[in-house]
Amino acid sequence: MQNNEQFSIVYPKGFKAAGIHSKIKKKKKDLALIYSDAPCTASGTFTKNLVKAAPVIVSEENIKNQIRAIIINSGNANACTGEIGMANAWMMVEGTAKVLNISGDEVLVASTGVIGQQLPIDNIMAGIEDIVEELGSDKDNGIDAAEAIMTTDTFRKQFATEFTYEGKEIRIGAICKGSGMIHPNMATLLGFVTTDAAIDKELLDEIVVEGVNKSFNSITVDGDTSTNDMVIVLANGASGVNRIKDKDDDLYHIFKEKLIEILKKMAKSIVVDGEGATKFIEVRIKGAKNDDDAIKAGKAVATSSLVKTAAFGEDANWGRILAAVGYSGIEFNPYETNIYIGSSKGELLVCEMGMGLEFDEDFAKKILSEKEIYYLVEMEEGKGDAVIYTCDLSYDYVKINGSYRS
Amino acid sequence: MQNNEQFSIVYPKGFKAAGIHSKIKKKKKDLALIYSDAPCTASGTFTKNLVKAAPVIVSEENIKNQIRAIIINSGNANACTGEIGMANAWMMVEGTAKVLNISGDEVLVASTGVIGQQLPIDNIMAGIEDIVEELGSDKDNGIDAAEAIMTTDTFRKQFATEFTYEGKEIRIGAICKGSGMIHPNMATLLGFVTTDAAIDKELLDEIVVEGVNKSFNSITVDGDTSTNDMVIVLANGASGVNRIKDKDDDLYHIFKEKLIEILKKMAKSIVVDGEGATKFIEVRIKGAKNDDDAIKAGKAVATSSLVKTAAFGEDANWGRILAAVGYSGIEFNPYETNIYIGSSKGELLVCEMGMGLEFDEDFAKKILSEKEIYYLVEMEEGKGDAVIYTCDLSYDYVKINGSYRS
Repeated sequence: MQNNEQFSIVYPKGFKAAGIHSKIKKKKKDLALIYSDAPCTASGTFTKNLVKAAPVIVSEENIKNQIRAIIINSGNANACTGEIGMANAWMMVEGTAKVLNISGDEVLVASTGVIGQQLPIDNIMAGIEDIVEELGSDKDNGIDAAEAIMTTDTFRKQFATEFTYEGKEIRIGAICKGSGMIHPNMATLLGFVTTDAAIDKELLDEIVVEGVNKSFNSITVDGDTSTNDMVIVLANGASGVNRIKDKDDDLYHIFKEKLIEILKKMAKSIVVDGEGATKFIEVRIKGAKNDDDAIKAGKAVATSSLVKTAAFGEDANWGRILAAVGYSGIEFNPYETNIYIGSSKGELLVCEMGMGLEFDEDFAKKILSEKEIYYLVEMEEGKGDAVIYTCDLSYDYVKINGSYRS
Repeated sequence: MQNNEQFSIVYPKGFKAAGIHSKIKKKKKDLALIYSDAPCTASGTFTKNLVKAAPVIVSEENIKNQIRAIIINSGNANACTGEIGMANAWMMVEGTAKVLNISGDEVLVASTGVIGQQLPIDNIMAGIEDIVEELGSDKDNGIDAAEAIMTTDTFRKQFATEFTYEGKEIRIGAICKGSGMIHPNMATLLGFVTTDAAIDKELLDEIVVEGVNKSFNSITVDGDTSTNDMVIVLANGASGVNRIKDKDDDLYHIFKEKLIEILKKMAKSIVVDGEGATKFIEVRIKGAKNDDDAIKAGKAVATSSLVKTAAFGEDANWGRILAAVGYSGIEFNPYETNIYIGSSKGELLVCEMGMGLEFDEDFAKKILSEKEIYYLVEMEEGKGDAVIYTCDLSYDYVKINGSYRS
């Protein structure tokens, strides 16, 4: 198989998908369906925004059940749409169940797009009749679905991986949408993962919470959490491998590692899809009082426009990093803090015990000229660690700040 | 007098100022001096960042005293510079005291520029010898000082006002630097206010804290608080008017109003100096549980890149406003929340009880086409109010998000 990623969510056995244009958007694909031949163990995480879109409320309800299908529309978020919006979300669920001849309990729904406008529900219901005819497990089906959930994403986001356990292949596939730039496009992040592994719901729930924390919740999207954010994982067991029921099971650990790896790849693709972003940045915090403090410090650094513009300018302006930790709200001693910059070109200590060092500017430039770079902040407060992912700010944002130091 | 603003900090009686090039920057003015003939009551607010620059620490110490002079350099922040930095800040204070023949206790110091590099202290000490020769009360002296504190500001920021009390004129003048755009240039905000009023320190302290909260602390500069932020007010009494000693004094109230008005103008000038900013935006929150909640909600709205891009696009995308309040961390009922947009062209209810209304899009466009607009969020939780100032995001940031809804 040349590129299993293109199969994305139909790569695992027993899954079908489709993506079509149902006239929510003017021209582009706007309706996606993911379908499993067998009932799936389902886990998900949903937006923590107090203002929740109707499909979030409906899917939070149904995810307690075994799931057969997810219906997703782009172009309209069905958020802030009151009772009519709730009714429309349920109609999408019931309509999908009907054409698939399954129960409404077995369907999840997701939407992304503009907030506060009612769905063109007639178009969508007609679309649901049409889309079921398009379901398939070909590469094109995966691509169609990946495209149908896009809003202003600049590229479609699709993933797949597999591993062998006791002679049997287990596959994981995924699609997602969103942009990790300073202005998240449409402010909605949707992610859907399919696997032909078999696993108990409690175990899958735990893995998904941990995995989403280490991936989507570790990317900075400017603090904006949307009304519609949703990450869903479906496991249908079609690989025929033993069901994962226990953490002592070897397979549990292999599966967990592979799933989290996919979630991280998805999150990373969202960071990379920033308008004009030229660099992927890891902010690594070590030695904070605890993990919560480390996350706070990491997010302060990763969301600082000053840090991000300096990254674009390939300028080792570590003072901005220290200043961001300084206003992050955590307690720490700046005079016991070291800062390193790094990439595949090497690592360089630029600030020792809170003070600037004389360092080789050419080497610093070389390190920061890479596409993937990291900043490491080392404190002396405790054992709290975190890694936060972000991107730089592109030239147009940056004219003034990026090259400030020179 | 044609334009008293150009006199800025030398507009009040008894103040002199100067601004020169002392070779910290390559070419531009980089050293400013403000001097009062008589000792001044002095009040100030300083950065809350845990990482404080040396001049902040020194000025926090000296502001307890009566003050005669402030020495300010741009081009280098003298932050994260350890013991050498502290020694250099004190040298600037003592050097200034010496050339002015006053005590070191009577001098404040401020710096703005790159972090983590030692000051070119020899150049600065030579500059201090030179700058004292340039002190004067002419318009050009005010302009020179305003220019010498600039970093990447796109225009110099100078202000003045006066009022008459019992036949005597009281004047207030000010200069400041900083940019309120999403990436605050150099992340430093400096503000200096002079007045020839006479006032007790406790009363001035109170006014300054309240005034800074309603002005500089109500503008959003992307969450970045700098290592060097500082706002200082000096009152030398040279107007000859009675000393303000009591809140029952009419003059207290008039003076307070005028001073806060100047502080707001200064803060606004910083918001307006955003790279490519086309609009000044007031985010008004009413009916939050308390003022703290109102401020949190207002800041979430004002820092949302999605809200700011929609403002640029003149798009009444109120859903982004409601979503921002939703993730601000406050408790409120979205279904008891109204949102209005407004400007000098009128006011329009766009979201009632958390749901979108059909509204006149042409009228909305007309309202939002103004240079100064506001968003009003009305909740039903309590009596908490706040007004936060911000600006939009310019076209280059905005290609994707600004015109999203159409």
